[in-house]
Amino acid sequence: MRIYVLGAGSIGSLFGGLLSRGGHEVVLIGREKHVKAVNEKGLRITGVEEFVTYPKASLYAPEETPDLLIVSTKAYSTKTALECASRCIGKNTWVLSIQNGLGNEDLALNYTRKVLGGITTNGAAMERWGVVRWTGKGITRIGVYPKGEDDFVRDVVRVFNEVGIKTEASTNIIGWKWIKVIVNSAINPIGALLEVKNGYLLENGYLQGILVEIAREGCQVAQQLGIEFEEHPIDVIIDTLEDTKDNYNSMLQDIKRGKRTEIDYINGKIVEYAESIGLKAPMNELLVALIKAKENLR
Amino acid sequence: MRIYVLGAGSIGSLFGGLLSRGGHEVVLIGREKHVKAVNEKGLRITGVEEFVTYPKASLYAPEETPDLLIVSTKAYSTKTALECASRCIGKNTWVLSIQNGLGNEDLALNYTRKVLGGITTNGAAMERWGVVRWTGKGITRIGVYPKGEDDFVRDVVRVFNEVGIKTEASTNIIGWKWIKVIVNSAINPIGALLEVKNGYLLENGYLQGILVEIAREGCQVAQQLGIEFEEHPIDVIIDTLEDTKDNYNSMLQDIKRGKRTEIDYINGKIVEYAESIGLKAPMNELLVALIKAKENLR
Repeated sequence: MRIYVLGAGSIGSLFGGLLSRGGHEVVLIGREKHVKAVNEKGLRITGVEEFVTYPKASLYAPEETPDLLIVSTKAYSTKTALECASRCIGKNTWVLSIQNGLGNEDLALNYTRKVLGGITTNGAAMERWGVVRWTGKGITRIGVYPKGEDDFVRDVVRVFNEVGIKTEASTNIIGWKWIKVIVNSAINPIGALLEVKNGYLLENGYLQGILVEIAREGCQVAQQLGIEFEEHPIDVIIDTLEDTKDNYNSMLQDIKRGKRTEIDYINGKIVEYAESIGLKAPMNELLVALIKAKENLR
Repeated sequence: MRIYVLGAGSIGSLFGGLLSRGGHEVVLIGREKHVKAVNEKGLRITGVEEFVTYPKASLYAPEETPDLLIVSTKAYSTKTALECASRCIGKNTWVLSIQNGLGNEDLALNYTRKVLGGITTNGAAMERWGVVRWTGKGITRIGVYPKGEDDFVRDVVRVFNEVGIKTEASTNIIGWKWIKVIVNSAINPIGALLEVKNGYLLENGYLQGILVEIAREGCQVAQQLGIEFEEHPIDVIIDTLEDTKDNYNSMLQDIKRGKRTEIDYINGKIVEYAESIGLKAPMNELLVALIKAKENLR
């Protein structure tokens, strides 16, 4: 399969690396220093598995159309990245977002009707340019966005599993995207504001209750929009915190590194959708303001 | 006038010191080290004015009844402090709370019907045992709690002004207490969570809007309870932030010193009153949980 990874950060490079090792024709589209390192010395994966593989790497999308365009930029870059890469989206190209937050797939729908949504619980971190640490094995779910079935999904699921990315197909991927957003809307800003590891959110009695209340705001919005859940977001929050108790969440990591967070595409989207249907999401609104203020402090 | 100060921290000692210098019979009831220092070397006031005065200081309330019992403990200590001092509350004793938060005067009403409420914008800080810095001159408002008039209020206002505590009488002191609580409910937890000076809350666009939203929750509860405001809380927030732009708020100071905050008596009371009348105050609820979690981190 010919696969381009648009946004070769940690998770995009991990997926691209595994697909490249599995014999697929992969192009990583990323930042200059990472592209240079990969083209010179290959892509090194460490952690869960250790290997070096040699995908192509480029600053721009090639002109030939791929079978699959995996979008793995930060959510705030999706619009620009898709616009720059749009020339490679052919009539047989499927676009798969494995990004956090809501709205990424909707942007892709401006270019093609062949859009897949995805979520993944794999953990990855950029160790240095050209080297990505696979910090934790997880599950990936993909499906036709917002809902539905297609033979191509079965092909991608097979390919992903063959190369070592544990993947399941879903006919309700929008439900999974919302679950992930609701989970992140509770865990990420709270962990970032208090600057604590995920485990602390489970230990502290005051926080357990408030995580549920934050999640409830998102659930109410989702319910009004007709989104159905395969699992209860509250259960997923608890499982996530237990599985990642020694980790600092990505929003806190972004703030510590002086980077922009994805708050607008997580809590901000919940506020936006709430307003669009006449609901309020005041806890989410407060968290957006606090995180944006904290971003601006650095 | 015979005046006891129950809770001789910074603001209580400042008031007691000014009243003592003015020739009134003052007893400061406070912690052991402060009591010892005041009894040995007198009470030194620095800052706005500089003087030494010699009130009595004691660990416990004397048995003789005072004309005025000023309560200036932290709000979470009011119940215990009043119980310990109850023997000195005679039938002619007025109890005046100049504390932050809601509910202090209601506790005093369990002991006597002669209860005054008070708010003050004077700033004071304990420099060391026996020495209090008057950091900023402000205005004090007192009145019969919850509302009303009494000749004694006029006497206290006269006495306070005579000794240098700029004071005005109010026939709607409960309104002023609510204004102060609403102002604190917005400024204090936000400043404490972000660990910034008050001025930052004015500079940051995201925060200005959210301060208004937090205050709105308190205003809605107050309105439902029939509380009337002499000034609009939003205006007071802006004035307060401008007047105190170089200060870290008291809640942040408490957290930094590993002390308990008054969050339960500020935002916590707004949540409590909201629930009692079937309203919700979700932003306040979230701020209570975040501040309590942050307290527990130390």
